[in-house]
Amino acid sequence: MRLRNKAGASEELLQHPTIIIQNAESRKGKWHDVFGNNNPIHIEVGTGKGKFLTGMSELHPDINYIGVEKYDSVIISALERIQEAGMPNFKLLNEDVINLTSYFEQGELDQVYINFTDPWPKNRHEKRRLTHERFLRMYEQVMKKNGEIHFKTDNQALFEYSLHSFSKYGMILNNVSLDLHKSDIEGNIMTEYEEKFSRKGMRIYRCEAQFR
Amino acid sequence: MRLRNKAGASEELLQHPTIIIQNAESRKGKWHDVFGNNNPIHIEVGTGKGKFLTGMSELHPDINYIGVEKYDSVIISALERIQEAGMPNFKLLNEDVINLTSYFEQGELDQVYINFTDPWPKNRHEKRRLTHERFLRMYEQVMKKNGEIHFKTDNQALFEYSLHSFSKYGMILNNVSLDLHKSDIEGNIMTEYEEKFSRKGMRIYRCEAQFR
Repeated sequence: MRLRNKAGASEELLQHPTIIIQNAESRKGKWHDVFGNNNPIHIEVGTGKGKFLTGMSELHPDINYIGVEKYDSVIISALERIQEAGMPNFKLLNEDVINLTSYFEQGELDQVYINFTDPWPKNRHEKRRLTHERFLRMYEQVMKKNGEIHFKTDNQALFEYSLHSFSKYGMILNNVSLDLHKSDIEGNIMTEYEEKFSRKGMRIYRCEAQFR
Repeated sequence: MRLRNKAGASEELLQHPTIIIQNAESRKGKWHDVFGNNNPIHIEVGTGKGKFLTGMSELHPDINYIGVEKYDSVIISALERIQEAGMPNFKLLNEDVINLTSYFEQGELDQVYINFTDPWPKNRHEKRRLTHERFLRMYEQVMKKNGEIHFKTDNQALFEYSLHSFSKYGMILNNVSLDLHKSDIEGNIMTEYEEKFSRKGMRIYRCEAQFR
């Protein structure tokens, strides 16, 4: 479903340059200008249809959010949400996470969210997982010192792998929850996937991994 | 149940000094003499009735095992197991883990097992948890460089806490399993608790935490 092409999506995306930011490389180090304020900037990598950041940006108007999503066919739904709700603190970047350091300056971001990312279960695809060391290195570079990755997934194997990857990188695991919806963590905004899996009674795993 | 007194237990324990090692402080740095060989030494802290180390010592005759257990009323069951099965590579220490560094020399041990330890759920008892930083410091001191703690529990909150504690200490989490009995890890020896909880369909959590 995520890979489905929506006819005309690419053209439509170009029509809203104040929401879907173009020429990302030219914004490097200047993202506060895009938002017109000096509030902290949080990004979500693989933001999908944008339900999570829609909720977050409404709940936290003093934080700037950027959703990074490479697929035209899903980011268009995020665009529609922003058009409807009209949050000035939620922007989109139609780009691949692999090039993150081309779009953001060292220390420019305050926090990274990874929600229900593709688990890439085969060993030979390990490097594609968004919690692989090569991505951690990028997140660390673009985040302020002691920045945090907030990570949620329903995929047990991906969570197990990620605990290994985070700890091997030297990160501190805070607020680990092995059954989020039965825990007492407040202010949780659910993603589309999270609602679906949670309704099926599946466990949601979550942690905050902090760089040293 | 674990705290029940067995009449005459204390006296009985003194009658088997080749299994329940006395004057532990005097063995510091000399544990290979106790076993009469130079094989690696693994300990289990809070060994209870000794089912886990009985299985391990039979499975791995080339490893020396020491079960540390402060309660007379349960260690006596471990003593009975060793008397029956007669493993020369399984010894007991009727002492409190808190004094670990009095019994073992720096780098004298190869591995530490913590199985189904008391979760001490109240915040004010955090320091009593065997995965608290003050215990990690002791394990690190008595173990060889890059030594590992192999940790199992059915208690979700204790596991969540321990992932935090291990990672904050800078340890690497290897082979994390969030549902051990549905995973493909081989050679798992079950403890008494593990059999009981697992029969009830409860998840068993496991990880190997490695010092840097």
